[in-house]
Amino acid sequence: MSSTEAPGATVPLMSKHALFMGTFVHSKALDELEYLHDTCVAVSAPEGIIAAIEKGIEGSADDVKSTMVKKLGWNDAVEVTDHRSSGKEGWFFPGFVDTHIHAPQYPNSGLFGKTTLLDWLNTYTFPAEESIGRDQVLANRVYSRVVQQTLSHGTTTASYYATISVEATNLLSLICLSQGQRAFIGRVCMDTELSPSTYRDLSAEDSIEASVLSAEFCGKIDPARKALVPILTPRFAPSCTPKLLSMLGDLARERDLPIQTHISENPSEVALVASVFPGSRDYADVYDAANLLTPKTVLAHCVHLTPRERRTVLARGCGVSHCPASNSSITSGECPVRSLLDDGISKIGLGTDVSGGFSPSVLVSARQALLVSRHVAMKTGNDADKLSVEEVLYLATRGGAEVMALGSSAGSFEVGKSWDAQFVRVGSVNASGTGSSDAGEHATGPVDLFGTETWEEVLQKWLFTGDDRNTRSVWARGRLVHRKK
Amino acid sequence: MSSTEAPGATVPLMSKHALFMGTFVHSKALDELEYLHDTCVAVSAPEGIIAAIEKGIEGSADDVKSTMVKKLGWNDAVEVTDHRSSGKEGWFFPGFVDTHIHAPQYPNSGLFGKTTLLDWLNTYTFPAEESIGRDQVLANRVYSRVVQQTLSHGTTTASYYATISVEATNLLSLICLSQGQRAFIGRVCMDTELSPSTYRDLSAEDSIEASVLSAEFCGKIDPARKALVPILTPRFAPSCTPKLLSMLGDLARERDLPIQTHISENPSEVALVASVFPGSRDYADVYDAANLLTPKTVLAHCVHLTPRERRTVLARGCGVSHCPASNSSITSGECPVRSLLDDGISKIGLGTDVSGGFSPSVLVSARQALLVSRHVAMKTGNDADKLSVEEVLYLATRGGAEVMALGSSAGSFEVGKSWDAQFVRVGSVNASGTGSSDAGEHATGPVDLFGTETWEEVLQKWLFTGDDRNTRSVWARGRLVHRKK
Repeated sequence: MSSTEAPGATVPLMSKHALFMGTFVHSKALDELEYLHDTCVAVSAPEGIIAAIEKGIEGSADDVKSTMVKKLGWNDAVEVTDHRSSGKEGWFFPGFVDTHIHAPQYPNSGLFGKTTLLDWLNTYTFPAEESIGRDQVLANRVYSRVVQQTLSHGTTTASYYATISVEATNLLSLICLSQGQRAFIGRVCMDTELSPSTYRDLSAEDSIEASVLSAEFCGKIDPARKALVPILTPRFAPSCTPKLLSMLGDLARERDLPIQTHISENPSEVALVASVFPGSRDYADVYDAANLLTPKTVLAHCVHLTPRERRTVLARGCGVSHCPASNSSITSGECPVRSLLDDGISKIGLGTDVSGGFSPSVLVSARQALLVSRHVAMKTGNDADKLSVEEVLYLATRGGAEVMALGSSAGSFEVGKSWDAQFVRVGSVNASGTGSSDAGEHATGPVDLFGTETWEEVLQKWLFTGDDRNTRSVWARGRLVHRKK
Repeated sequence: MSSTEAPGATVPLMSKHALFMGTFVHSKALDELEYLHDTCVAVSAPEGIIAAIEKGIEGSADDVKSTMVKKLGWNDAVEVTDHRSSGKEGWFFPGFVDTHIHAPQYPNSGLFGKTTLLDWLNTYTFPAEESIGRDQVLANRVYSRVVQQTLSHGTTTASYYATISVEATNLLSLICLSQGQRAFIGRVCMDTELSPSTYRDLSAEDSIEASVLSAEFCGKIDPARKALVPILTPRFAPSCTPKLLSMLGDLARERDLPIQTHISENPSEVALVASVFPGSRDYADVYDAANLLTPKTVLAHCVHLTPRERRTVLARGCGVSHCPASNSSITSGECPVRSLLDDGISKIGLGTDVSGGFSPSVLVSARQALLVSRHVAMKTGNDADKLSVEEVLYLATRGGAEVMALGSSAGSFEVGKSWDAQFVRVGSVNASGTGSSDAGEHATGPVDLFGTETWEEVLQKWLFTGDDRNTRSVWARGRLVHRKK
């Protein structure tokens, strides 16, 4: 079977209802985490939707189960996970949403030297992407690993840039499906000479045709777009002819497709756009003129937007993918997140931007977002520019869901939303000063509780000292998709 | 035994000679890592000094051993560690030097909220330190853990701030000794009303007496200062009366003691110093007037030094402890490292500054130093301000050794230096896209080699995606002091 033909694959479903008991922490608002203790979340099969959230439960897991089963009218075949005995060492947290990640660049994680955006593309990025398109074995190896790694870091939804290759992009779709990660699959569109002659679409028409093939491949497997969502992906304005941009805008409308692209990442890039599109009022206008700015558009970076561009982004209802690790690494700039929020742009999530960003972890992105906000504050002298722990964890979950137009179905624990979750466990230090954890000294990594922490402080410690070792189990759409050994 | 009395403890020594074989990577110069392949490093007992470095070795470990034993005139009781089969997945690297870490603040790692230096001290720091001084059980718990954790992250030398408590500080000395980490032990001196009335020295004389007690405790165990070095520690200028500063300057000279303190971390602190010491020309002058700036002085932060202060620091030969994670976290500023280097200040190392800094890992400090240098470059518009991977790894090892006046005995692999080392192992991704490592999927953490990397790129990946899981074994002064389970 060529991977461009209709695959036999189908969307996997949860086999039986499930009850999760313990402490649940999630964002209630941008600046507020809610802590639900002694709570039971009921998840109904086969779609993995939260059917009930019962607070203040008491008694044995069996007692709770029989009450919940009666209440929900379920049969008795229910899987029960009871973490109530974890105390402050364990809690359920929403799965992370990575709103911007380049799957084929994963092998370059950490490699960027002293480059900035435009030379980084030529030195590291185009060669990596081109090689993936030419070699399905390599594509399988890289894509399998990046999906595994992001899942193990708690990412239940990821918006991927793939490459221009339809075959390799279809393979990414199948890998996300089989590993159980909800994914936006973006075949990259680029038809200008900015890209190497050996790695670009030959014409706007070719680019559109290939994008349609990739979207239809996802559509055959998952017509309702519950697990796989094709996303139109003009790389960035200088990579695309005006004709291609315009055709993509039309295609998005005709097929109701989301869109992702880059905007205003780096000053040289902004200047390049101005020179390539002399008739446009600004960078945002290039996309707007092609009808590419919609409520389902994800704009990566938004570091240097002008006031006029902010008004455009706000008016069109686009989402912003903030990629702090990447912006610092390749010296792009410091995204003024608070100022965007103050201007009414509330749909902001986080992107790891592998491999401009060095880590596949959204937790690391959240940490760096907090640190970068302090560099913004140093520049402006305004303490209000600092983001709080609560705020960056909101961006990592609920904000990301909003950006991906999944606000009603993911990002927090609410009845009717999908069970996209991770169970986080941290370690504690015993009386003699050694770490207590479930298997080996560092099984839960370097987070060390001393027992005096408030819940708020536990979350702060996780944000700053935690890693994938703390993400013990991960569920997407109700299904267990990762478990730490 | 009261811990202020002469302890029975002695400096532990290496029991037999050792040979290490494999790839050795270390800093040859600020901007150059040297890669020694198929090399054998011979370490002589009992002091753990590198006796020979033999490049281009061939044959079995037994063959190499008999050649080396003959060459060195050793007896046959030699421990052999042969890692030549690791390829690019494993190498020896110098142990890290943490030039600035507050041991009692370890339980606060990651907790700083939106504070800056002066309110952070009152909110988080003083309460944590005071509680350690009042409770030896807590002190044992916290200090045991921080030494364990820093060792597990590869720190073979650490310069600790303790608290004002002599008893608790002596306990820290014993814990470092028993765990085998080379440590500078700083009883904190502070006798002004900036510190809480319940947590400060009652007079300059009291402060000096306590410091002498602490220094003598170390001196009885380790008169040659090979494993334990007492370090005079005026907290920072506003915490100390001019009289105390002056007496500390005298004490340093009389007993040939190193000194550590903070300088020019945060603009409000700089303003406070100017108001408290109106007769001083600048912050550096406060210390210089008390003879506290010497070639054995470690100055933490140095973010906002004036040109005149830089000349003073250079003229006195002081070392700089750059603490990038801390400076970003508590919004202190962006240390212009390149500019300090350009002004001739070459003794620069890294400090984790736990818990202004959130991580006990010098590798994380090196990563953040590289990122912070990019924020400096964004501000100045000068690409030369960017630090390279090679440069931040130099700061983490050889630079730190220079700062601690250990330049002739630690920081790199050279005959006559101490065997302070870590064996680093990283993972690789097999043909089917899963990780290959020695025990469980994540035993070596998230570093993923794909097999096409150069050695330089392997080191870059380690810097950006590595963690304590990659530090498999750690030796200090020749002795194995940590092994990953």
